[in-house]
Amino acid sequence: AKTYNICLLPGDGIGPEIIAEGCKVLDAVGAKYDTAFSCTEALLGGCAIDATGTALPDETLRAAEASDAVLLAAVGGPKWDTTDPAKPRPEQGLLGIRKALGLYTNLRPVQIFAALADASTLKPEIVDGVDMMIVRELTGGLYFGRRERFYDEEGCGMDGAAGQRAYDTLEYREYEVERIARQAFEAARKRRNKVTSVDKANVLETSRMWREIVHRVHDEEYADVELEDLLVDNTAMQLINRPADFDVVVTENMFGDILSDEAAQITGSLGMLASASLGDGTALYEPSHGSAPDIAGQGIANPLAQILSVEMMLRYSFDMQDAADDVRRAVTAVLDEGWRTGDIKGPDTPADKVVGTVAMGDLVVECL
Amino acid sequence: AKTYNICLLPGDGIGPEIIAEGCKVLDAVGAKYDTAFSCTEALLGGCAIDATGTALPDETLRAAEASDAVLLAAVGGPKWDTTDPAKPRPEQGLLGIRKALGLYTNLRPVQIFAALADASTLKPEIVDGVDMMIVRELTGGLYFGRRERFYDEEGCGMDGAAGQRAYDTLEYREYEVERIARQAFEAARKRRNKVTSVDKANVLETSRMWREIVHRVHDEEYADVELEDLLVDNTAMQLINRPADFDVVVTENMFGDILSDEAAQITGSLGMLASASLGDGTALYEPSHGSAPDIAGQGIANPLAQILSVEMMLRYSFDMQDAADDVRRAVTAVLDEGWRTGDIKGPDTPADKVVGTVAMGDLVVECL
Ligand SMILES: CC(C)[C@H](C(=O)O)[C@@H](O)C(=O)O
Ligand SMILES: CC(C)[C@H](C(=O)O)[C@@H](O)C(=O)O
Repeated sequence: AKTYNICLLPGDGIGPEIIAEGCKVLDAVGAKYDTAFSCTEALLGGCAIDATGTALPDETLRAAEASDAVLLAAVGGPKWDTTDPAKPRPEQGLLGIRKALGLYTNLRPVQIFAALADASTLKPEIVDGVDMMIVRELTGGLYFGRRERFYDEEGCGMDGAAGQRAYDTLEYREYEVERIARQAFEAARKRRNKVTSVDKANVLETSRMWREIVHRVHDEEYADVELEDLLVDNTAMQLINRPADFDVVVTENMFGDILSDEAAQITGSLGMLASASLGDGTALYEPSHGSAPDIAGQGIANPLAQILSVEMMLRYSFDMQDAADDVRRAVTAVLDEGWRTGDIKGPDTPADKVVGTVAMGDLVVECL
Repeated sequence: AKTYNICLLPGDGIGPEIIAEGCKVLDAVGAKYDTAFSCTEALLGGCAIDATGTALPDETLRAAEASDAVLLAAVGGPKWDTTDPAKPRPEQGLLGIRKALGLYTNLRPVQIFAALADASTLKPEIVDGVDMMIVRELTGGLYFGRRERFYDEEGCGMDGAAGQRAYDTLEYREYEVERIARQAFEAARKRRNKVTSVDKANVLETSRMWREIVHRVHDEEYADVELEDLLVDNTAMQLINRPADFDVVVTENMFGDILSDEAAQITGSLGMLASASLGDGTALYEPSHGSAPDIAGQGIANPLAQILSVEMMLRYSFDMQDAADDVRRAVTAVLDEGWRTGDIKGPDTPADKVVGTVAMGDLVVECL
């Protein structure tokens, strides 16, 4: 039997609860497809800060690098919130591992499960058929550019007085844009063959460069794919106005952060959306939602986005397409049977169809 | 009779058509309130590039500075789109005048007109009661920071080859955050007394500074106002999830650009939304929508956002609250009577209730 080593990063909040369900699903898939998934846990985020003083301990990074794939749950929580630049923050763990593993492509599929179409705050005829893939650049831009904060004796406070100033740098190099553009065009060829490239070329120099490079890559290598440019502010509107029109949306890191969450919310069921972060080596899979500290430890968190990140892992890291299809079918079947966690239940969901984290994981495993 | 000098900037696309209706309304208000509005036109944007080679001619800036208020329609169009840093772009006119007049506060009210509630792609129960004020910082951040593009002999292309790199700088000084925070708290006191401050403090240094300063101003001067922090990605979600919960939303320039357009789209009738850009001197008023080059010259553009920017001018620059209320009442009445331009007509709008730009302006003037 083939063996894959998986590095598990439960993180904070509901993380440990939902990742356990992801592992259950991995085990079930392994049994069916004669594959062994050997899982090792490591610390990332707030729990790592508490245990070691840093959000991304060396040990964790080494474990991740040595693995065949990383399954992350979620990091962060109010406990570690701080604006003091000197203090460690859980997000440094997430950003650090993305950078260290070179995970420059973040794929965020946004789809509507038929059984949950009602969960959207948008009208049913608007969300009908929504099926897009956000391709977010993940290791460049404002997230990783130089940043600093100063105290100046004059000119920064009111009326020329003393005060602080700070900056962050949005920087891109040609190869960073080129490789993410290729990822977007490749993804489009496997889908509806259309790419929307999002920038703010009427203001930002990085956006003007972005637009030129995306078009060059398109014209030279992917002229068969339909390509349109859309300004980021207009995109924020059109996602609400005509979400079903989008196929692949490619954009830089910060715009991608904002637009992918907006697009996720259009489905009304953020608890159902997974993401893959890919580079040239080990890849990382995580839910699109956060660590939900407010419901942590109660056994009520929705594990389905975590389970769907296992689906993505099977697809992208292990090329186990049948197994991935199985997982998706199982999740769809469980929803079609009416089972819901609290976050995705509707006004008409009968009380006995509302289940907790573990029960939901069990239902998916049964369906496999 | 009192006289005010208004600098008119028709700009590009539908600009000249809609600003004419704004002027009609100004004249009607002037007659009723014994006030003379003396209007002079100047060039800004694409039309200025065509006529003078620059998007913001000195003459225009001088005319704007000398006026009591500036009424802008919209600038830009595909004719002038370019990614060549050496070529002039229409947006430079808009950004240039914002900076030159020191218009650091952009107020974008987002409301639903009862008669148009159906236009939203969101469910009626979700948009019911939406009434927020986006307070966008308008003269700082990525829009005005240092930016450059380089060509490097190595390290920027694929596989270490030659290639380009570019950067933009997101920079803020303490006084810039302080004064916009004050504007937000002041606005909240006149509304429902709640401010949501939007940042990305888990990643950006400017956001961490932003958050600290907003809280200091709050604690020292506005402790009576409710204040919450929300990350920009989460805000992009919550605007769709529970838009009616927001009162005042304050944020930096680029986040404000994206979120204010998203919020505008939630109403489904972007053609109805105006904005005010305020500083310490002459203020500027403009529709939230763009220059719509695709329908320019056809006489079908919706002039109501332009007319509502006249309302804001009366309110903020001339403290003519009764006149401003009149304008709003007139617009509401025209809508309640069922009159529509093409962009806001519904599936049930009778054909004889759909009117063009001039007719819509006339209807509002009649109602005054
Ligand atoms: C936690 C945070 C740093 C992260 C990001 O902004 O990238 C998250 O919002 C995400 O989208 O994965
Ligand atoms: C035209 C463009 C430069 C401008 C901006 O980004 O500020 C516009 O989108 C706006 O919001 O007024």
